[in-house]
Amino acid sequence: MSSSVRTFRVLNRCSHSLQTSRLRCQHVAKRFNSTKVTEEVKHGSRPRTVFSGIQPTGIPHLGNLCGALLNWVELQKNAHSDDVLIFSIVGWHALTLPQDPKTLSAARRDMMAVILAIGIDPERSILFHQDDNPHHTDLAWLFNCITPVGKLRRMTTWKSKLATSRNADESEVDESLLNAGLLTYPVLQAADILLYRATHVPVGEDQKQHLELSRDIADTFNHTFKGKPRLFPLPEYVETPSRRILSLRDPTSKMSKSAPDVDSRILLTDSDTQIQSKFRRAVTDSTVGVTYDPVGRPGVSNLLTILAACTGENVLDVAKRFKSKGLGDLKAEVTDAVVQLIQQPRAEFERLRDDPAYLSAVALQGATKSRLIGEETMKVVRSRVGLT
Amino acid sequence: MSSSVRTFRVLNRCSHSLQTSRLRCQHVAKRFNSTKVTEEVKHGSRPRTVFSGIQPTGIPHLGNLCGALLNWVELQKNAHSDDVLIFSIVGWHALTLPQDPKTLSAARRDMMAVILAIGIDPERSILFHQDDNPHHTDLAWLFNCITPVGKLRRMTTWKSKLATSRNADESEVDESLLNAGLLTYPVLQAADILLYRATHVPVGEDQKQHLELSRDIADTFNHTFKGKPRLFPLPEYVETPSRRILSLRDPTSKMSKSAPDVDSRILLTDSDTQIQSKFRRAVTDSTVGVTYDPVGRPGVSNLLTILAACTGENVLDVAKRFKSKGLGDLKAEVTDAVVQLIQQPRAEFERLRDDPAYLSAVALQGATKSRLIGEETMKVVRSRVGLT
Repeated sequence: MSSSVRTFRVLNRCSHSLQTSRLRCQHVAKRFNSTKVTEEVKHGSRPRTVFSGIQPTGIPHLGNLCGALLNWVELQKNAHSDDVLIFSIVGWHALTLPQDPKTLSAARRDMMAVILAIGIDPERSILFHQDDNPHHTDLAWLFNCITPVGKLRRMTTWKSKLATSRNADESEVDESLLNAGLLTYPVLQAADILLYRATHVPVGEDQKQHLELSRDIADTFNHTFKGKPRLFPLPEYVETPSRRILSLRDPTSKMSKSAPDVDSRILLTDSDTQIQSKFRRAVTDSTVGVTYDPVGRPGVSNLLTILAACTGENVLDVAKRFKSKGLGDLKAEVTDAVVQLIQQPRAEFERLRDDPAYLSAVALQGATKSRLIGEETMKVVRSRVGLT
Repeated sequence: MSSSVRTFRVLNRCSHSLQTSRLRCQHVAKRFNSTKVTEEVKHGSRPRTVFSGIQPTGIPHLGNLCGALLNWVELQKNAHSDDVLIFSIVGWHALTLPQDPKTLSAARRDMMAVILAIGIDPERSILFHQDDNPHHTDLAWLFNCITPVGKLRRMTTWKSKLATSRNADESEVDESLLNAGLLTYPVLQAADILLYRATHVPVGEDQKQHLELSRDIADTFNHTFKGKPRLFPLPEYVETPSRRILSLRDPTSKMSKSAPDVDSRILLTDSDTQIQSKFRRAVTDSTVGVTYDPVGRPGVSNLLTILAACTGENVLDVAKRFKSKGLGDLKAEVTDAVVQLIQQPRAEFERLRDDPAYLSAVALQGATKSRLIGEETMKVVRSRVGLT
């Protein structure tokens, strides 16, 4: 399909899609206008509103793919037709650490292409740039006004983010480097989630503390600015298979975009030959055979984790399959699996990357849909706090 | 003129007015697209963009009127035709301290009526509710990301605001009560000002520290996110006659909305009889004659200050006029002057208060105009930081 035809189709579908979206938003609104249904949501029953965000980091490596992005695809695949799925590229969060504007701008566009390439369907899920929806920062401001500074200082994440960004140890990072954005980003995160009155949030283990804060903020708002029905549900943690993918060259540290050795990571844009070569050079150990032992045999265990992530199996089951096989067999199979996994999204990504008009059309559609729901929430919020 | 006719006229005028606004905005934009002109602005020459904000505190007393609002009218009267004047009712700031939603909502509408009633012309000046323009919090988020937390903690205002709100002494206020909104409100203030690339800001002595921070933030942005021309001018302090109006019952403290004795303040809505009675009961002293001596004779000096504020004279000149007169003469003249000052705006306020459709139309027009300029600034900001 040519670029202009694809763009035309998106724009054409946009009005139908917005119609569906409007119905869905009314459905979300209605859901929260009935206390009964709110109670249902509270007890974890359907329908759910799922929110998840990712920073615009550009071309993802295998760790990013298996850690968050492929989970989104799983979520979309397994969602009930009533579920509202909202995926956001959170540009405002990226600014909490120094960024090169040109790199950030490219990464922001690339991330949209990546998400589409791996299979998020913009007709089924709401996919948008956070900074295209002005309600996020409005709600964050309001939440700032009900969040004690002390609570934010106790969050551990800003310290680790600051340390990582400076390639330093957490103990070396002092507070004078902390900017107000990094201190308050968990509040913006709460706004990201609660703007859509999300009921379910898939987050990594390290972000659980922030989700707890979002629940606190929702609760404080509900109690401070009373009204029927309760405005914000307390969002629940969605457990997703945790797949900590490690460096192929130093399997004691996480796979990272910034490690100097490019062979330490597999990128979505790597060719089959590059993937093969990187796995061939992957550090393992001299023990004979294959066993899953993350502490004693981190390299081998990492390959098993990657293979399990690709096939959707349990890592222990994968290890069992290799009981009587050798490391060479494991390397061959994991290479094939990753080549398989990446082939289609890589081609799709490269096609989409060359089609900025289509990407813009998708972004516009997502912005419009997300604004619709945000507007609905903010109307209630403003009336409850007295800004009407 | 009937309510519906007035509203119709505003809406009708809106398109013409927006046209003018658009031209003015282009003019502002153009001004900042020429380094030469930026330099001119730097050196204090015209044309100027003046920004000032006021919290939605509802019916003002004489202290509010003389302290800020009447200065706005003076500014409007003396402005060059090229000057852009922007006046904002800053609802987001009000939320930094606990508010009763119903009271806040009424105060927000009343403040709009007050500003119009005292003579701000919505065709000449841009008058709008801060919370109706989403660009303020977007820009504030970005500024948060370049503002060290330590700098905000050193601001003295949050401590005094917190103390005042709790009727406590500053030394009794501990930081655990500080919310992130109160800590970061000087950053939102910087965004309020810089969103319009304001060159001049009339603020009270107590807010000078915040204007200094706005200049710092502008400078940090200009240096961090380089580009030609320099995006933000460093806004200058506009000195306005400082008129500290004191309580009529206890002239050692400021005239206040919350003091238990209603006779301590004159409200915009007071009748002539109420004004007369309050000045009759005003605390002075037993010394014979009239002299200006704020420390030794606070009550008499306060009456002189009020009279000077009403007539636009220097307070020492007023005192000279009363050299051979008595306290009775002073009370009679200050009563007359305040009755004169308040009569017209009070009637206008009461008329406008009964015309919510007109007030909404003015708010909508102001929101549209302010968004136009805000959009222009944010377009450049986003491109400079890489969110495009």
